[in-house]
Amino acid sequence: MEIRCNLDDLSPEQASHALGRILDQGALDATLTPAVMKKGRSGWILEVICYPGQADKLSKLILSETTAFGIRRHRMERMILERHHITVATPYGEVTVKVGTLEGKTLQQSPEFSSCAAAAERHSVPVRLVYQAALSALNSEAFPKE
Amino acid sequence: MEIRCNLDDLSPEQASHALGRILDQGALDATLTPAVMKKGRSGWILEVICYPGQADKLSKLILSETTAFGIRRHRMERMILERHHITVATPYGEVTVKVGTLEGKTLQQSPEFSSCAAAAERHSVPVRLVYQAALSALNSEAFPKE
Amino acid sequence: MEIRCNLDDLSPEQASHALGRILDQGALDATLTPAVMKKGRSGWILEVICYPGQADKLSKLILSETTAFGIRRHRMERMILERHHITVATPYGEVTVKVGTLEGKTLQQSPEFSSCAAAAERHSVPVRLVYQAALSALNSEAFPKE
Amino acid sequence: MEIRCNLDDLSPEQASHALGRILDQGALDATLTPAVMKKGRSGWILEVICYPGQADKLSKLILSETTAFGIRRHRMERMILERHHITVATPYGEVTVKVGTLEGKTLQQSPEFSSCAAAAERHSVPVRLVYQAALSALNSEAFPKE
Amino acid sequence: MEIRCNLDDLSPEQASHALGRILDQGALDATLTPAVMKKGRSGWILEVICYPGQADKLSKLILSETTAFGIRRHRMERMILERHHITVATPYGEVTVKVGTLEGKTLQQSPEFSSCAAAAERHSVPVRLVYQAALSALNSEAFPKE
Amino acid sequence: MEIRCNLDDLSPEQASHALGRILDQGALDATLTPAVMKKGRSGWILEVICYPGQADKLSKLILSETTAFGIRRHRMERMILERHHITVATPYGEVTVKVGTLEGKTLQQSPEFSSCAAAAERHSVPVRLVYQAALSALNSEAFPKE
Repeated sequence: MEIRCNLDDLSPEQASHALGRILDQGALDATLTPAVMKKGRSGWILEVICYPGQADKLSKLILSETTAFGIRRHRMERMILERHHITVATPYGEVTVKVGTLEGKTLQQSPEFSSCAAAAERHSVPVRLVYQAALSALNSEAFPKE
Repeated sequence: MEIRCNLDDLSPEQASHALGRILDQGALDATLTPAVMKKGRSGWILEVICYPGQADKLSKLILSETTAFGIRRHRMERMILERHHITVATPYGEVTVKVGTLEGKTLQQSPEFSSCAAAAERHSVPVRLVYQAALSALNSEAFPKE
Repeated sequence: MEIRCNLDDLSPEQASHALGRILDQGALDATLTPAVMKKGRSGWILEVICYPGQADKLSKLILSETTAFGIRRHRMERMILERHHITVATPYGEVTVKVGTLEGKTLQQSPEFSSCAAAAERHSVPVRLVYQAALSALNSEAFPKE
Repeated sequence: MEIRCNLDDLSPEQASHALGRILDQGALDATLTPAVMKKGRSGWILEVICYPGQADKLSKLILSETTAFGIRRHRMERMILERHHITVATPYGEVTVKVGTLEGKTLQQSPEFSSCAAAAERHSVPVRLVYQAALSALNSEAFPKE
Repeated sequence: MEIRCNLDDLSPEQASHALGRILDQGALDATLTPAVMKKGRSGWILEVICYPGQADKLSKLILSETTAFGIRRHRMERMILERHHITVATPYGEVTVKVGTLEGKTLQQSPEFSSCAAAAERHSVPVRLVYQAALSALNSEAFPKE
Repeated sequence: MEIRCNLDDLSPEQASHALGRILDQGALDATLTPAVMKKGRSGWILEVICYPGQADKLSKLILSETTAFGIRRHRMERMILERHHITVATPYGEVTVKVGTLEGKTLQQSPEFSSCAAAAERHSVPVRLVYQAALSALNSEAFPKE
């Protein structure tokens, strides 16, 4: 399900807080998009992705945590990669990599940012270095030819 | 219904004017979201919310008031708070408050901004003061425990 | 069909490149909207419009060209203007104009930007002048009264 | 002078109201740009353009009308077109056109949007038609070769 | 000092991480604004506010933590409110309020969001309720007449 | 120099075209930032970076290519990395890498996107693969410890 509402009456820090609460309560993803609302007001569109079984609970949460007087929602079809994690060795220690496959084919290998950031902090280097080292450590042959 | 179209060929003042016309003709809400379009053009996504009975009329209005050559639309399910208005007394005079309830429970009490702005002008104070005074005047006990 | 995904892990130049690839592979339109994602990350929502027959191919392209681990999609109803092209004479040479009609009524006459830009370059004038000259050359009587 | 501040604690309708107040009090221009602030909050940068003599008054207005605890400002050099207005006849009546010149050369001829909108309303036609008619009515020869 | 650079080659999660690092290293404030860059790329403008004594250190940090190959910077004049904190009693416990004064006059009284959020969590109520209760508890007489 | 102006009267395709012209005429960089302008119009702030010797020429170009009736500008101090290019071997052929150094220290090694895109097209693989291969090929030891 995708749940949406327009917000023109909520301060940025309250909006950010609401986003966190919605994710804590089981939403798959949630975003705030800046938009121009009626009367030229600058507000946001809140967009929440969740399983259908969570939709009622999250709709009510939105109506009580934000200033929205209504939400709209509809069913989406999803196509997702199967995901698993692998570990690669880098000069900065081991880093976790998220791997996404579709019908048995690897389409994505993505170093976990939080894992890179932790290693970067341990070695006092920019996180970009660790990220690049993790990419180097991946066997690029494993990547799909299109 | 949600009606959407991508605009990459309309000046901002024309886009704002179209937004006003669409709301005048019965849309429930309408927003403009800045987006990057094909060929790296910076444009907007126009999003209009309306009752199904208004969808054809508003679709044609969009096609004649904007530069869009096509719109897309789909049905959404809505969940809305029941709303009524109350009046509270503040040091700056009476202010209207919009109250939203769901299944008999009050979820929102929101001072009407235009009502606050009018009171602020009469007393030459920042509108924030009137807004806060209206919140103070509301009986905070009436708010829901989650 | 409308296909959407949230991107918080792709650099702007990769995102722009992916947009081009998606359009090359048959999408009707594709946009990137800046949004605030979970954990306060600043990312984009990618939105692709396509015919249902292209949806599977484009979904897989998105999953391999971007860093998304999932997409969501749903069917939209479209209302489009019939379009044909006419040519108008301007002081800067001929310019192509795109004409949109609905139920036999002309709703849009829009000078092709690339055609205006080419004429502007040939005559070393700002493109705005050519655009305005093309509008002048159109018979404004042909426009619909609402 | 350009005055700027970051706002992460003000609702959109209050921000829009503040923008109006600032323009009423003599600012030359004022804009709100959506931005991601510290802690991943989605807020705005407020930017106000004014004459140096107005800077103190407007700085204080910003500090009392918004939630900013500080503003920053600096002097800019301006280059502006000299402007005057002319009137052109269109099938929808007379329309005002703003003309901008630099060192005696006409660089801009821009139909006033509010004047077009008024004519459009009188004749019940889309404002785009009136805008285009006004452009047609301008003697395009008068435009500068670059 | 205001330091700025254009980023078109950094992923959102790296950009957010860099923002955090910059604030940790002593910047007064830092924001990311979405913008359209050359070649139609969708990127960000990074804007950092700092004391002049920090400018060199932060400039180098930006050049090593982001993908920017150059920064630009200039001196701004600041006008800031003097700030102190007070505590108010609410039905949800004590809440900290930030008070801003200019030339002895109170211009701002702003409940600390983190303090409200903590109280809201302790009492399992929406943070909005605590925020409003804190505003109610403030003596609105203390506010300035303009 | 930084040159800026607010645009609320230019269509997105014209704005993008103007951006290209400004870069062709010698600007160092140019960006469009979506913003809410006066009367709630959704427009852009155009920002151009250039050498002082180009400022007058580019200011006039902006005033004739866009609908702006005025620009503002001011001097910025720049700090830039020294840059040179190296070539690295990847499974997809040679790729150009831009290297940025400050006071003799390498701070940035960035594969040229266009070079990666060309290699990706030759081998029919996603550009991400080439980009990652180029990063792998770089000797990560060469990177600076902070």
